[in-house]
Amino acid sequence: MPPPAASPGTTSPASPRTNPPPFFLGIDVGGTNVKAGVVDNAGVPMSHVSFPTEAERGPEHGLQTLARAARAAMEQAGLSYHDLRAVGLATPGTMDLPAGMLLDPPNLPGWTNFPIRDRLARELQLPVTLQNDANAAAYGEFWAGRGRDADSLVLWTMGTGIGCGIIIGDLILEGAHSHGAECGHIIIEMHRGRRCDTGQYGTLEAYAGAKGLLRRCEEALDAGRASSLHEFRARHEPITPLAIAQAAEANDPLADELILETARYMAVGTVTLMHTIDPDMVLLGGAMTFGRDQTAVGRRFLAELRHEVRLRAFPVPYARTVIDFASLGGHAGFIGAAGCARLKYGRKS
Amino acid sequence: MPPPAASPGTTSPASPRTNPPPFFLGIDVGGTNVKAGVVDNAGVPMSHVSFPTEAERGPEHGLQTLARAARAAMEQAGLSYHDLRAVGLATPGTMDLPAGMLLDPPNLPGWTNFPIRDRLARELQLPVTLQNDANAAAYGEFWAGRGRDADSLVLWTMGTGIGCGIIIGDLILEGAHSHGAECGHIIIEMHRGRRCDTGQYGTLEAYAGAKGLLRRCEEALDAGRASSLHEFRARHEPITPLAIAQAAEANDPLADELILETARYMAVGTVTLMHTIDPDMVLLGGAMTFGRDQTAVGRRFLAELRHEVRLRAFPVPYARTVIDFASLGGHAGFIGAAGCARLKYGRKS
Repeated sequence: MPPPAASPGTTSPASPRTNPPPFFLGIDVGGTNVKAGVVDNAGVPMSHVSFPTEAERGPEHGLQTLARAARAAMEQAGLSYHDLRAVGLATPGTMDLPAGMLLDPPNLPGWTNFPIRDRLARELQLPVTLQNDANAAAYGEFWAGRGRDADSLVLWTMGTGIGCGIIIGDLILEGAHSHGAECGHIIIEMHRGRRCDTGQYGTLEAYAGAKGLLRRCEEALDAGRASSLHEFRARHEPITPLAIAQAAEANDPLADELILETARYMAVGTVTLMHTIDPDMVLLGGAMTFGRDQTAVGRRFLAELRHEVRLRAFPVPYARTVIDFASLGGHAGFIGAAGCARLKYGRKS
Repeated sequence: MPPPAASPGTTSPASPRTNPPPFFLGIDVGGTNVKAGVVDNAGVPMSHVSFPTEAERGPEHGLQTLARAARAAMEQAGLSYHDLRAVGLATPGTMDLPAGMLLDPPNLPGWTNFPIRDRLARELQLPVTLQNDANAAAYGEFWAGRGRDADSLVLWTMGTGIGCGIIIGDLILEGAHSHGAECGHIIIEMHRGRRCDTGQYGTLEAYAGAKGLLRRCEEALDAGRASSLHEFRARHEPITPLAIAQAAEANDPLADELILETARYMAVGTVTLMHTIDPDMVLLGGAMTFGRDQTAVGRRFLAELRHEVRLRAFPVPYARTVIDFASLGGHAGFIGAAGCARLKYGRKS
């Protein structure tokens, strides 16, 4: 069967004739979409597809969606199941990684105590690994992205929540209870701190996550700060992080200040990790990176973060730790998930 | 030559006839004392000695002190150099661990850019490893102390500074720039935080270290809080952490509150590490553990720390992470240093 035409957005038209085997399938399960792709032995994606998760329809329906995404990714790469060595699955927590179980993931409501790894393995008749989604994205950047030359890295995934993945040499920091690298929930303000969705006070996520940003914006508007963002209220439209980024790009001073404040919060978390993990590299990924280096506001965000790190970190790690944007964008999760499958099953003959 | 009598405080009179070989020598260099001991292959010390560091006399004098301590520890164990497999050295930072260099250690002023590992190896004609002192203590507890059944642990060393060591499986978290586990310098209060000796604001050490405790005490006395500690001022005597612990043990309410406050600060740092490292176990060691479980105030300190962790941590790591006092006391450093030598050289035939 000839490979089907690459879907729109496929950046690297690939074929099993030129990509180095063995091949791995990565699946990144989000609350909204399931992304999947076949990845070659060098971490280059040979296909990528996206399906709505429809999480509310429950885990059995979800399992069928994963299988459907797997088939589509395979066919798009011009491969069949016997061409694949193994499958890597990345999901949001909470989870029990050694058991391959979802426990009670807030972003997949109802997928409770679901043995997703072994159920998918039976469905696909292939070995499957399970990893936390932010850990998988970190491994993707480490294996095949901005961090490919680093020996250790921390990846922040900035979005509704603040996720984190930590790679140290061959170690993906899963933790003893599958709570490793949950660094959105480190405490940066112990007194009278803001509260995040999990009910914890003073966490990084409560300040730097999308909801924290929007709350700080609403408070500033309530306090009468001049801003083009008042127009959203006049039109009864919700203010979004994207709207704030666009206003900042158009030189709205409040929007700019809110984003630089976010950078300083992320810097505080980054310093704590530089003084704990001391990685080669700290990367910033996720939807809430304000256009990254493609926009002036994205570049100001990164410059402010680095500046605040300089004020707060020890000189040696400040001077030597690379702090930059991640490079794989929304593909990091499935590429990294495939990389985790390769870590476990790729070296077998 | 018969072994000399064990020095006072030797808990386990040992002999090369009953302790399992190979044997390792551990040396723990502090700003005040050099502690050394021979340790058997199971982590049991066969001797321990202590000499004044006299750090101000410089690194060449210091090297001779290390050699003297090594000889004394060996003789006390009834061994000679050819009975030893290797030597483990633990020192305060700053350092370059891969290079075996001291860089600019504040507690060893003048021992700047000193290649201590290789100089000691030449002096003793034995292989030498270098490790950060808190990392070595953590490895000691992991190998042969309270953490011997854990797969991963965090050790806090509470004293003038707040030190930390992190062990994950076979990995001692040294970091990419020898700044791993410098968790006294994680930020727990990002706004208007207290300042620690390194000039950083809002760090754990600024609140929970000995100087932080004494500063909080002075502030409370200045504010007119009732306390038996006012008597020290009347007598022009300095207040020490030990004096505060003794006052708390005698039910002084201010002293008690200062110690419980310290426990809550340590809990904030502990939660950050539970949400980053997610270890099996968090241990508390060092001089400033308020008598540990031997005193009522030590037990209250630990209970308050655990209580605050419960309020702030995710339920799963809270329920499953053991939080307790360390067990090796002042021996953890040289035992762990010997363990690091064993990690590198012990498995060779």
